[in-house]
Amino acid sequence: MQRYASVINLKKEGAAEYQELHANAWPDVLAKISQCNIRNYSIYRYEDLLFSYFEYVGSDYEGDMARMAQDEVTQEWWSVCKPLMTPVLEAGKKEWWHEIQEIFHLD
Amino acid sequence: MQRYASVINLKKEGAAEYQELHANAWPDVLAKISQCNIRNYSIYRYEDLLFSYFEYVGSDYEGDMARMAQDEVTQEWWSVCKPLMTPVLEAGKKEWWHEIQEIFHLD
Repeated sequence: MQRYASVINLKKEGAAEYQELHANAWPDVLAKISQCNIRNYSIYRYEDLLFSYFEYVGSDYEGDMARMAQDEVTQEWWSVCKPLMTPVLEAGKKEWWHEIQEIFHLD
Repeated sequence: MQRYASVINLKKEGAAEYQELHANAWPDVLAKISQCNIRNYSIYRYEDLLFSYFEYVGSDYEGDMARMAQDEVTQEWWSVCKPLMTPVLEAGKKEWWHEIQEIFHLD
């Protein structure tokens, strides 16, 4: 199992809509996340910053992420969510969520 | 099981020492954390912000946290770590790490 944590900025004017969407996330989007081997997935908000944490239990992360990106319902979901967010300054050119460094872990 | 996530600021001049300490955390401190029913505990760094995530598996969170705070080795560990950090502006008077809101979860 591999843990992943990432950050992204939430636009002030998009915060309420983002929270509402994620309190009622589309079942097909959730099913696709599970099919792509993501478990124990949480998103937290600190002011204008979102933190995500999840555990990847598959053996082909890039492949699973590509599979998720090809899913039509997921694309539709992203088209609704993406305008509410903006990558942090430190994000790489190909990043949307910006992966952050784990500096401590205790099972 | 209850998930907890929190943030705190890492002082620029304390970042290297904080990371070094947490890469080699004291075994007695880790044992106490486990005894106090904390599991799957990770700390991530994003620039000057630390993000902690853990799962509490006991039935008396306040009591367990008080028990941890009474532990001598833990107190010594905190006396080394605390000068390297500073609570975020939004932290309440009794908070050190500031708890943040979960806005999404998928098992």
